[in-house]
Amino acid sequence: MYCILVLGCGRSSVFLLKYLSEHASTQEMKILVADVNISEHSTQMQNIEFHVADLSNELLRQQLISQADLVISLLPPAMHASVAHDCLIYRKHLLTASYATPEILKLHFAARESGITIMMECGLDPGIDHMSAMQEIDHIKNTGGKILSFKSYTGGLPAPESCDGLWNYKITWNPRNVVLAGQGTASFLKNGCLKYVPYHRLFRTLESIHIEGIGHLQGYPNRDSLSYIERYGLQDCHTFIRGTLRYKGFCEAWDVLVQLGYTEDSYIIHNTDKLTWLELSSAFLPEYNPSYSLEHNLSNALKCEVNEHIAECIRNLGLFENEPVLHQYGSPAYFLQKRLEEKWAPPSDYVDMIVMLHELEYFLDEVVRKRSLSLIVKGDDNLYTAMAKTVGMPLAVAASMFRKGLIKKTGVLLPVDKTIYPHMLTELRMHGIRFDTKEQVI
Amino acid sequence: MYCILVLGCGRSSVFLLKYLSEHASTQEMKILVADVNISEHSTQMQNIEFHVADLSNELLRQQLISQADLVISLLPPAMHASVAHDCLIYRKHLLTASYATPEILKLHFAARESGITIMMECGLDPGIDHMSAMQEIDHIKNTGGKILSFKSYTGGLPAPESCDGLWNYKITWNPRNVVLAGQGTASFLKNGCLKYVPYHRLFRTLESIHIEGIGHLQGYPNRDSLSYIERYGLQDCHTFIRGTLRYKGFCEAWDVLVQLGYTEDSYIIHNTDKLTWLELSSAFLPEYNPSYSLEHNLSNALKCEVNEHIAECIRNLGLFENEPVLHQYGSPAYFLQKRLEEKWAPPSDYVDMIVMLHELEYFLDEVVRKRSLSLIVKGDDNLYTAMAKTVGMPLAVAASMFRKGLIKKTGVLLPVDKTIYPHMLTELRMHGIRFDTKEQVI
Repeated sequence: MYCILVLGCGRSSVFLLKYLSEHASTQEMKILVADVNISEHSTQMQNIEFHVADLSNELLRQQLISQADLVISLLPPAMHASVAHDCLIYRKHLLTASYATPEILKLHFAARESGITIMMECGLDPGIDHMSAMQEIDHIKNTGGKILSFKSYTGGLPAPESCDGLWNYKITWNPRNVVLAGQGTASFLKNGCLKYVPYHRLFRTLESIHIEGIGHLQGYPNRDSLSYIERYGLQDCHTFIRGTLRYKGFCEAWDVLVQLGYTEDSYIIHNTDKLTWLELSSAFLPEYNPSYSLEHNLSNALKCEVNEHIAECIRNLGLFENEPVLHQYGSPAYFLQKRLEEKWAPPSDYVDMIVMLHELEYFLDEVVRKRSLSLIVKGDDNLYTAMAKTVGMPLAVAASMFRKGLIKKTGVLLPVDKTIYPHMLTELRMHGIRFDTKEQVI
Repeated sequence: MYCILVLGCGRSSVFLLKYLSEHASTQEMKILVADVNISEHSTQMQNIEFHVADLSNELLRQQLISQADLVISLLPPAMHASVAHDCLIYRKHLLTASYATPEILKLHFAARESGITIMMECGLDPGIDHMSAMQEIDHIKNTGGKILSFKSYTGGLPAPESCDGLWNYKITWNPRNVVLAGQGTASFLKNGCLKYVPYHRLFRTLESIHIEGIGHLQGYPNRDSLSYIERYGLQDCHTFIRGTLRYKGFCEAWDVLVQLGYTEDSYIIHNTDKLTWLELSSAFLPEYNPSYSLEHNLSNALKCEVNEHIAECIRNLGLFENEPVLHQYGSPAYFLQKRLEEKWAPPSDYVDMIVMLHELEYFLDEVVRKRSLSLIVKGDDNLYTAMAKTVGMPLAVAASMFRKGLIKKTGVLLPVDKTIYPHMLTELRMHGIRFDTKEQVI
């Protein structure tokens, strides 16, 4: 029996576990799942052996890993290096949906030496985004096309039927990451010019992105796009940008929080249990005059127009309510997170959606053509989410490829490898993760 | 002979060395000065023994320290902890003009045990600012007054006759610190409300400060004012702010650099030797259209009005010139620093100026009174600067107090101690560092 060990079974694991559960018998696999907490829903799955275990305990973790042929880690990214070291010692393959950090990349030769494969970035973002982009880029290059421009946008959003008309956003992943998203400087290439966007201008650097069947969304630049130019082999492009999608209006309202300093995580405010939310929030405005409207106060404070809809978004978070903060101390980002966890909790009938769009312009046969690939995946329900599907299914397909011996390269491997992505994308298509392609001469 | 060792003899040492040189005979002191470079001007001073030495070399440093009774360190603040450890081993007093960092503060009991005094914050800022503030605060409290508001502003500026009509600023200290000034979040108390100002709004949070004989300057909040409330014993104040002074217009122009992201030090731009300054700077604007004026381009980019004067300040730095960058790589802050080092170098006839203002409002005998203390010190010339005088003279006076046995407390000591500041401020007054006091009922 081929033994697969899954470390971690949080929200994003359901589709992966369902797949493994359903294919365990036919593919002759033994499935072990370990986590410190295991949901009741998970334990009802057939053909899976569950272990309640604190996976930060090295001995326990190694004891589990020693039994497996393949380890799939859904643990927080900071733990991957430890798991990878265990896999090296016990000569087990490792599969994750997280970034191949420098720490992981430097294990390449050790992994080769041990004859194991460490496959990283096998989820949605990173994962499906890079694989689908590489397929398109390789295809255009193979037909003799010269790629001039590459734009790629991804977003995890509420499905239209789950929008609330205000923020149109719910928290379905790590809430701390939601608050800190985009900190640092974003970089990209636009019409041959380098562009660097500091965090305080990030949510003002927007592009309107039309997605068929959804409408106009907003895209803001996603971190260091420049570092992907070489990786994608697109050194001759005049435009290269990767971005994050939100519904219209989200970024303008979030920008108010950034401008106020509410996403700062570098200092602690003390004795906040003596304050109301209004008092705490007023500390981020040069002046707060209670006899003026919130939009008036925010416009004055930030010296730019804050319209009624934006003010309503801010008001809706409860940041300017006359009720006690309760928490004793924290960074501004911590307080904002506490408010968002309440206000942006997905309701029980929540349906999420993953949207991805690649737009490539290329020159072929004397004309410039534009090729758009769009992906829309909606969740089945609040448990079987689009996020869990698009993160879990690439892992499931990769696990099956390991099982079938289709992955032959050792060392640190990414699914953008030409020996991996064609099979992977074909399989994903069969599971409903399917890009629509449009092409036109421009 | 009482032996005083001065470590470091850069720009800020001249007044200290002059004082020691002139008083060596009468006060029976032997003066040793050590640094890796010693200026010709310094070596011409009488009664001083100069040692060329790399003071990061522990052995060399300890050999010098072992000969001294008192060590005065003008070395970069990062080196003070090592020097303090040497002083503990050899049981020598230590005197500096730098902040008492947590690292230094935790040597308090060890210093007491060794019977030595480590006197920190004995310069201008920190130094004269705290001593003069404490004198006023203690005075008002002693007369039964209740302090309601404390505002304190300090600036190192060109004297009016050395202003250029544009930035009105020259670099006379560490240029890297000039570029990075104010990073982080500033905090203060205003009319009973906490205020937190993120860096990207710092140079927009201005107060107009009138200084008699100079005119209206601008003050922006200086880091964490809140932490000084307890230290000053002003827990009942409704307003407490410490700030930095600049000439009018400086902050608005510097804010453009902050908004562009030109003061960022967190990432590196590569291959910049292939760019012009115009190309590099354009990377910080969403769009740059060479057929529009710079003010038009900046206003568009930052979505706020950038007037002609501000644009002229920016243009004057050469950031939008069509000449090669030359440097191969660096952070935005590094490139900006390189430009400022050229453009803001003080001319040979430069005269600098230190301005300090404390404004206290207090309640006494049924009325609210306002007391203003202002200090203006101008430099003698480009060598004997106001900065060197206000940093060096407190050290000189403190050294003389050590010599005369007037400093009896051991451990880590600050000159705001009631046994120190009265004598110190009296002596400084005799050396021309003199506050003007005004009082009015408001």
